[in-house]
Amino acid sequence: MTPGPTEVPESALLGMARQMSHHRTPEFRKLLAEAQAGLKHVLATQNDVAILTSSGTGAMEAAVVNAVPRGGKALVLESGKFAERWRKLCEVFGIEVVRYEVPWGEAFQADEVARRLEQHPDIAAVFTTLLETSTGVGHDIEAIGRVVGPSPALLVVDGISGVGVMECRTDAWGIDLLAVGSQKALMTPPGLAFLAISPAAWRRIESIQRPAFYFDLMAYRKALADSDTPYTPAIPLVRALVESLRKIQAVGIERIWAESRRLAQALRAGVETLGLRLAAARPADGMTAVFLPEGVDGRAFLQRLEGRFGLKFAGGQGPWKGRIFRIAHMGLVDELDIVSTVAALELALAEAGQNVKLGTGVAAASRVLAQ
Amino acid sequence: MTPGPTEVPESALLGMARQMSHHRTPEFRKLLAEAQAGLKHVLATQNDVAILTSSGTGAMEAAVVNAVPRGGKALVLESGKFAERWRKLCEVFGIEVVRYEVPWGEAFQADEVARRLEQHPDIAAVFTTLLETSTGVGHDIEAIGRVVGPSPALLVVDGISGVGVMECRTDAWGIDLLAVGSQKALMTPPGLAFLAISPAAWRRIESIQRPAFYFDLMAYRKALADSDTPYTPAIPLVRALVESLRKIQAVGIERIWAESRRLAQALRAGVETLGLRLAAARPADGMTAVFLPEGVDGRAFLQRLEGRFGLKFAGGQGPWKGRIFRIAHMGLVDELDIVSTVAALELALAEAGQNVKLGTGVAAASRVLAQ
Repeated sequence: MTPGPTEVPESALLGMARQMSHHRTPEFRKLLAEAQAGLKHVLATQNDVAILTSSGTGAMEAAVVNAVPRGGKALVLESGKFAERWRKLCEVFGIEVVRYEVPWGEAFQADEVARRLEQHPDIAAVFTTLLETSTGVGHDIEAIGRVVGPSPALLVVDGISGVGVMECRTDAWGIDLLAVGSQKALMTPPGLAFLAISPAAWRRIESIQRPAFYFDLMAYRKALADSDTPYTPAIPLVRALVESLRKIQAVGIERIWAESRRLAQALRAGVETLGLRLAAARPADGMTAVFLPEGVDGRAFLQRLEGRFGLKFAGGQGPWKGRIFRIAHMGLVDELDIVSTVAALELALAEAGQNVKLGTGVAAASRVLAQ
Repeated sequence: MTPGPTEVPESALLGMARQMSHHRTPEFRKLLAEAQAGLKHVLATQNDVAILTSSGTGAMEAAVVNAVPRGGKALVLESGKFAERWRKLCEVFGIEVVRYEVPWGEAFQADEVARRLEQHPDIAAVFTTLLETSTGVGHDIEAIGRVVGPSPALLVVDGISGVGVMECRTDAWGIDLLAVGSQKALMTPPGLAFLAISPAAWRRIESIQRPAFYFDLMAYRKALADSDTPYTPAIPLVRALVESLRKIQAVGIERIWAESRRLAQALRAGVETLGLRLAAARPADGMTAVFLPEGVDGRAFLQRLEGRFGLKFAGGQGPWKGRIFRIAHMGLVDELDIVSTVAALELALAEAGQNVKLGTGVAAASRVLAQ
């Protein structure tokens, strides 16, 4: 239960074991077209979705170099390790950065974004994050979209960890560029990244000089019209993607969002009942970050959970290294995974000498699930 | 028998069907270390080899942006579609290009390279191609290496199609940056690319400002020291790579080079006996490009070969569209594949109304194989 790579459905694993075929064929174009349609459903968009052979960071780079020209200005919303990546990308590509920073664990305020857009009317793009994986915060992209919408700035969102598990309405919320990774809620192995591109983003891309070749979205636009990719795609990963998207579409993304929220609420109820404190002021529905109790060694605690129960959680990063642990719940995670996660936490805390009443966390989680 | 994606061994296909595990674990680091060692064998190098999640074009971009700073000067050796990609990459990243162009199908002359290096002592890198897939030419990298070696320029080679099938001695020939793709002679699905980086290349990379983030090799260097990758790798493709590399190492790269040469010689003998003309003045051992005879429609010819025999060849590109066809022979291609390819050509030419004596091409190919 780490925030990616997540478990991949059997049909997708078996899809990868098929022999290669050539990618510039009607059969493979049909597969790419199906992947496109499935991604549009998951991303709740009618926009084009480019399929990149890269990690999610590649899609972030593509968004930066295609949205803001060298010497342009960007507003970066910073509150964690992955938001920080937006700033570093902007700096590498010669973009002037205006920062709006909130402490780790807190959420961005839309009116603070609006204030900075007024102060700097030449901001070309606002970079933010749906699920900040380092803190477990789910940012209010809908509210941010409302203040960015009327401005000339593009809204660029890192949805790598959040899309497919927590509500994210690309078109309704006015997201111009949405970066998504394959290995999180999309239940596909790592190696593909996706970028939804709005008509306004296309106009920007057409109008600026882009320091990009592999990530030049104009090449993808030309290929997209033909259900093709500009460079040889990772064929087995595309096959896996199509299988996983079929599973998602069979349920429907709206229902997945609702289900994921219920699971997250159950986990949070269980965790808080055990006296643990959530790390995120606005917890995301795809991942729960929890402060370690005083006196519990993080490393030993996570090793005990993995060794005894085979349960792998992620530790903290940056300033929160050794202070938190992170439980991802997306993709194939179900009700009983949540219940048993809470049960394992109870046992591990008791063994670590914490004063927990066994069964109380599980009871709290189950009460949410029973509703 | 197209120039990639090539057939993938069963062990590699099955390796991909395994469930995901986390990549920052001792088990996965061990796999990455094995991949590193195998790649060093195949590339005949002691240099570091970075593993990128991208198509081969990504490795080419990485080579360009890490080897030559914006405003620097590069010598690009041009003679086909893929050599042209070096020039386009340089142009996009603000590098001044000195061109040395020879007509399609011809090979570069080392003394012409030397002359340009003398004329432009500020050339920071020479970009060239091992196997130019659009023409079937195998360029003399050894000779080019001898003239680039004493100059301050780095030697950068696109070995995407050639490495693993034709002789390529990275260290002995003085190749500073060698870009390789997974889906050609390495018998791995597309989606990974490799870059061998010499100590001189590392010194250059350290010393220049790099307009790169996803492809910034300094991030790979840091990760390499720890048998890690800077961004989430394409786990199934790494597993497939390790399986395919085991197969290559079991034979040994020197023996594969020699075998591939023999197969190429047999195919060329067969093709020429049928009265067909080779397109490449210096044919590569991994791919044979052949001019279509007068009066034969290329499209119909290739469709007949595919429809009747299930044999897929590639057509021509750019100025050679409709004028040539291209037969790749790398990876799992063996003696009988060569013989049956020539037999199929005989039958297809006869059906296209050409005057061929059935069996003569096969006999010529077999005589080479009998030696």
